[in-house]
Amino acid sequence: LNEQDAEFIRSSLEGVNPADITALLYEFDAEECKYVFSLLPKEVDAAILNDLEDDLRERFISEFSPEELAQYLEHLDSDDGADILYQMSIKKREEVIKYIENEEKASNILDLLRYDEDVAGGLMAKELIKANINWTILQCIEEIRKQAENVQKIYSVYVVDNLGKLVGKVSLKRIILAEDGVKIADIYDDTVVSVETYMEDEEVAQIMQKYDLEAVPVVNARGKLVGRITIDDVIDVITEMAEEERQMMAGISSDVEEDDTVWMLSKARLPWLIVGMVGGLAGAQFIGLFKGDIALIPALAFFIPLITATGGNVGIQSSSIVVQSLANPNVFSDGLLRRLMKVLFVAVVNGVILALMVFGVVMLFNRNEPLAATVSIALFSVVLLASFMGTITPLVLDKFGINPALASGPFITTANDLLGLAVYFSVAHLLYNL
Amino acid sequence: LNEQDAEFIRSSLEGVNPADITALLYEFDAEECKYVFSLLPKEVDAAILNDLEDDLRERFISEFSPEELAQYLEHLDSDDGADILYQMSIKKREEVIKYIENEEKASNILDLLRYDEDVAGGLMAKELIKANINWTILQCIEEIRKQAENVQKIYSVYVVDNLGKLVGKVSLKRIILAEDGVKIADIYDDTVVSVETYMEDEEVAQIMQKYDLEAVPVVNARGKLVGRITIDDVIDVITEMAEEERQMMAGISSDVEEDDTVWMLSKARLPWLIVGMVGGLAGAQFIGLFKGDIALIPALAFFIPLITATGGNVGIQSSSIVVQSLANPNVFSDGLLRRLMKVLFVAVVNGVILALMVFGVVMLFNRNEPLAATVSIALFSVVLLASFMGTITPLVLDKFGINPALASGPFITTANDLLGLAVYFSVAHLLYNL
Repeated sequence: LNEQDAEFIRSSLEGVNPADITALLYEFDAEECKYVFSLLPKEVDAAILNDLEDDLRERFISEFSPEELAQYLEHLDSDDGADILYQMSIKKREEVIKYIENEEKASNILDLLRYDEDVAGGLMAKELIKANINWTILQCIEEIRKQAENVQKIYSVYVVDNLGKLVGKVSLKRIILAEDGVKIADIYDDTVVSVETYMEDEEVAQIMQKYDLEAVPVVNARGKLVGRITIDDVIDVITEMAEEERQMMAGISSDVEEDDTVWMLSKARLPWLIVGMVGGLAGAQFIGLFKGDIALIPALAFFIPLITATGGNVGIQSSSIVVQSLANPNVFSDGLLRRLMKVLFVAVVNGVILALMVFGVVMLFNRNEPLAATVSIALFSVVLLASFMGTITPLVLDKFGINPALASGPFITTANDLLGLAVYFSVAHLLYNL
Repeated sequence: LNEQDAEFIRSSLEGVNPADITALLYEFDAEECKYVFSLLPKEVDAAILNDLEDDLRERFISEFSPEELAQYLEHLDSDDGADILYQMSIKKREEVIKYIENEEKASNILDLLRYDEDVAGGLMAKELIKANINWTILQCIEEIRKQAENVQKIYSVYVVDNLGKLVGKVSLKRIILAEDGVKIADIYDDTVVSVETYMEDEEVAQIMQKYDLEAVPVVNARGKLVGRITIDDVIDVITEMAEEERQMMAGISSDVEEDDTVWMLSKARLPWLIVGMVGGLAGAQFIGLFKGDIALIPALAFFIPLITATGGNVGIQSSSIVVQSLANPNVFSDGLLRRLMKVLFVAVVNGVILALMVFGVVMLFNRNEPLAATVSIALFSVVLLASFMGTITPLVLDKFGINPALASGPFITTANDLLGLAVYFSVAHLLYNL
């Protein structure tokens, strides 16, 4: 690349899928990337810009002038164009839109910018094929011909009435197989699933998954067809949801990746570490209350990690099962009480098994009955309480509109550490009659 | 439902999307479901059977005779049929296949059963539209007409040569827009992305995501077109991958849901609880070595939960960042050494901040310099070591072909608990000159 052998680069990248060129670009620095961009056709550049990860794209955007960016946007669907504009300052946005020559594209993009990024309106593209219910097949094919350049993948033709209201769809297969004279009204399917502009992206993803749709039409509050969402955008939503949940479970508080800066990575990790630390310090104060007990029976201290670790593990298991149920709402239908009873049963089974094992091991190694009894009774109680906490916390968070996955992370571990210590030392205090 | 008012049920479910009926069935018991099935058209029953969750479907399958099941399979794509057969004993499978009347369907399903469920061959359907490169558009449309009933969604027509080798594809849009006399050879796109039968499902999902494909053709080792994978199956793979990872992070060792039996839930949770317990008991033995120190300075015991919790949190954060990078391999390209250096930097930043805070708090509440120094030095070291462990463990697991997400669960927490205790008591022993 350093030789800047333009002809060689150009010819070797010809016919290569833009997605593969994108993968290559991650190896280059911004200047080299810009050079490669200048050698490629504008529509390939546009596809690459669309493929790039958010943070790399942000760096790219700052390298290009508004005119250059406008040229790329001409080659993208309106939703992808809007996504790129979301990453700029409002000032730069306006300038880029000013330079877009295709006025329909510009007004489509402006339309989309009105919606939040995480609702159906922000996810949809304006490009779609729309047919009036009174048209013939030939009129419909004529429309497809006209729009062929704008709409990359058609999936279905959406059928609207004279007011622009969505009334159904026709698959391309049916259009191909229909006789020339047939009217849309005779062959369209009136059981089309649609979503409304204000619907949240996660709900859109659930609907498309449930009905196995590769595209879904978007209507406004009056039922008018305003856009469509395609499956590739929804896969991104599903992937992001999974990533967000993993980060919550890992106690990472913002969307970071390994190639982010040291400072960004530290900042994303610090908040939950501090929560854990404050929990640990509170635990220290609490254990301090039993200073005398520990001085008398130092062996009590030995089992602190056992109690806290088991509480943490049980809590995360319980909460992640509830979080999973909340994400697939049709899987179960039991009431709260039956669910808690079941959680209790599972906890009793596991608690008894663990408590018996611990009792045996402590007797074997320490030959100390009161100690073995204290540790195993405390462990059993901790399993029960941590199961309960792990089940109830995500349900409460969900009730208040907070992402319940938050409860599968350091939050529940910290809470259960404190709970475990309280149970452990209370049991010890009682059993030893201290 | 109990009134068994057949006409009412039939009429109220008419025109309802099968996916919605499936959701309803979760509320009913097996007998009621079977009754509803008997009222609905066979193709709707088939769609519902295909939609059901695995465990509920297993119960369903046992309720139906092989003849009945065969009738449903006639209405499903070969891949969905094979998925259902995978859930039966080999004996019942053979019987069901015997009763399938459509011989092509039966042989297609038998073909698919040869492949593992988790490779491209097990994911693909045999139903697709295939056109010879020498055909005209009209011949191609004739083929679509013939296959129209078998192939629900066409997406693209795949182009093969005289030997059946995949050479390209034509979109339905191009077929609609082409003049009647044109040959496939003139309009097909020869840069088609395909996958091979033995490719793993996760890799197929990555490829379809990378190139934004809604369907991908599958070829055998000789390049012959043998099937195609559609996006709905791949979304299931993506969702399952995310679920599997969450379960690993939560320390749940098999695929369970809240509505499984108490015994299944207990069994899935017990293994990692036992691992955690064994770790806790090992920790107890280890702290026992410092019995004398604790008897002299009971305050040392107070900070055990702080040390182990921080080690656990840091470890999970680190490992989940690495797991994420391993899942998106093109995001970064740094070597091992540079990655470890970066992890070290992040750990130093967070470690220093946490250690200073802890030093301040302990001085404030306990006014004990050696104790504050011990805790904060140990905490700093634990942050460093746990970061290192959390980074290196998933990389090592990945090297040995084990799912690295395993390292984001109780595994790393347990390991870091022990590591943390070792560091803490070593630092204490040194600083106090015990």
